[in-house]
Amino acid sequence: MPTDRPQPVFVLVRPQMGENIGAAARAMWNFGLDRMRIVAPRDGWPNPRAVAMASGAGRLLDEAVLVDGTSAAVGDCSFVLATTARARGLTKPVLSPERAMALAAERIAAGERVAVLFGPERAGLENDDIARANAVINVPVNPEFASLNLAQCVLLTAYEWQRAGGGIMHERVDMAGAEWAEQIEIEKLSEHYEARLAEAGFFFPEHKADSMRLNLRNMWSRMPLTRADVQTLHGVLRQMVRWKERG
Amino acid sequence: MPTDRPQPVFVLVRPQMGENIGAAARAMWNFGLDRMRIVAPRDGWPNPRAVAMASGAGRLLDEAVLVDGTSAAVGDCSFVLATTARARGLTKPVLSPERAMALAAERIAAGERVAVLFGPERAGLENDDIARANAVINVPVNPEFASLNLAQCVLLTAYEWQRAGGGIMHERVDMAGAEWAEQIEIEKLSEHYEARLAEAGFFFPEHKADSMRLNLRNMWSRMPLTRADVQTLHGVLRQMVRWKERG
Repeated sequence: MPTDRPQPVFVLVRPQMGENIGAAARAMWNFGLDRMRIVAPRDGWPNPRAVAMASGAGRLLDEAVLVDGTSAAVGDCSFVLATTARARGLTKPVLSPERAMALAAERIAAGERVAVLFGPERAGLENDDIARANAVINVPVNPEFASLNLAQCVLLTAYEWQRAGGGIMHERVDMAGAEWAEQIEIEKLSEHYEARLAEAGFFFPEHKADSMRLNLRNMWSRMPLTRADVQTLHGVLRQMVRWKERG
Repeated sequence: MPTDRPQPVFVLVRPQMGENIGAAARAMWNFGLDRMRIVAPRDGWPNPRAVAMASGAGRLLDEAVLVDGTSAAVGDCSFVLATTARARGLTKPVLSPERAMALAAERIAAGERVAVLFGPERAGLENDDIARANAVINVPVNPEFASLNLAQCVLLTAYEWQRAGGGIMHERVDMAGAEWAEQIEIEKLSEHYEARLAEAGFFFPEHKADSMRLNLRNMWSRMPLTRADVQTLHGVLRQMVRWKERG
């Protein structure tokens, strides 16, 4: 069963190599997309090479809808995007993958059905296919070297679909069970170092002692220290003192 | 000749298949990145399979810097990112590719050198490599199906680098004349502490010594240390030793 989450349909138009169909399925499922339609695959259908390559994403191939023309593939969709590597002399909005998937997300949220067309490996989509699309998606690659393959194009589009879906955490810390130290703990750490280092004669010469203390305190407070880090740093100092005391 | 545009270095750590090295080069050059470093490739170097796969991006392989360890690969960099597929039990910021490349762009614009580490195909980076990084990059894939290969991970990161190309500063640090420490300086600081603390009997009991060392190293690399901080921390330790020696 496909997932319930509303999503665009990815349409592979006249794909050639079975391996690439399998790789496209994997690329989609990495980002939670599982609705594929396939237009007139060169080597027929089902394709054992596609199945072998898809491995854990094989379900997408089992559930893929096979059709014989692009018009049948997008017939039930109200917004169609066509991926192309180069301009085609057709007057058509050209969107970045990011912008395209943001628009797709808006339309899908409003209850529309959206399709994204991907052309065959060598030649890409024909103008006839592109003419059915509301807009074109163009991945902004290096003008000196544009060599995205089918699965990579699917991957970047699926990635942008997920980014458009929100819920991506841009930044977090893998705390691995650790907790951030509280300010009071940092303060005590700072005092511990100041006291021992004073005993050890660190704050020298006298006229620089204040600024040395300030720099040290500023350093501790700037560090993202966990409670475990604070304990480690106390431990480091204690051990040095014990070592000294053993003489 | 590499392009002049300031950019992060992509470091392939212990890559296995030559084809994947070639595919990574293509993925990079699609988005205008052309500085690759390779740590201890399994099948030696140069690798004809890598060259065959790279085709139009072969120049990146010709100019790739071969090194025998991760520390040599990132020694001249002041900001290191490590790509991982899963949490590793190390306390470390976890960034989306978008956020990570935005930060990389800001730091590069400020004159810093940035490296991104990619692990070997099967196992990914080792904790020892990750402990050298300032932060981790995690591509937010489908939790039920995470199957990005090496070249796809390189592709998404390179794509986000290009998207970040605006060089917009979202956040900056008032450096007040200070400079960030380079990785080699952090490495030496870490070694200094490890050596002295070992003498002082800190790494005890024996069966916990390795994980204590790893945690300590991870702590230093996670800290935003300036060159002055590094000097201070060396000074702290030296002074404690001197104090001990005075008896």
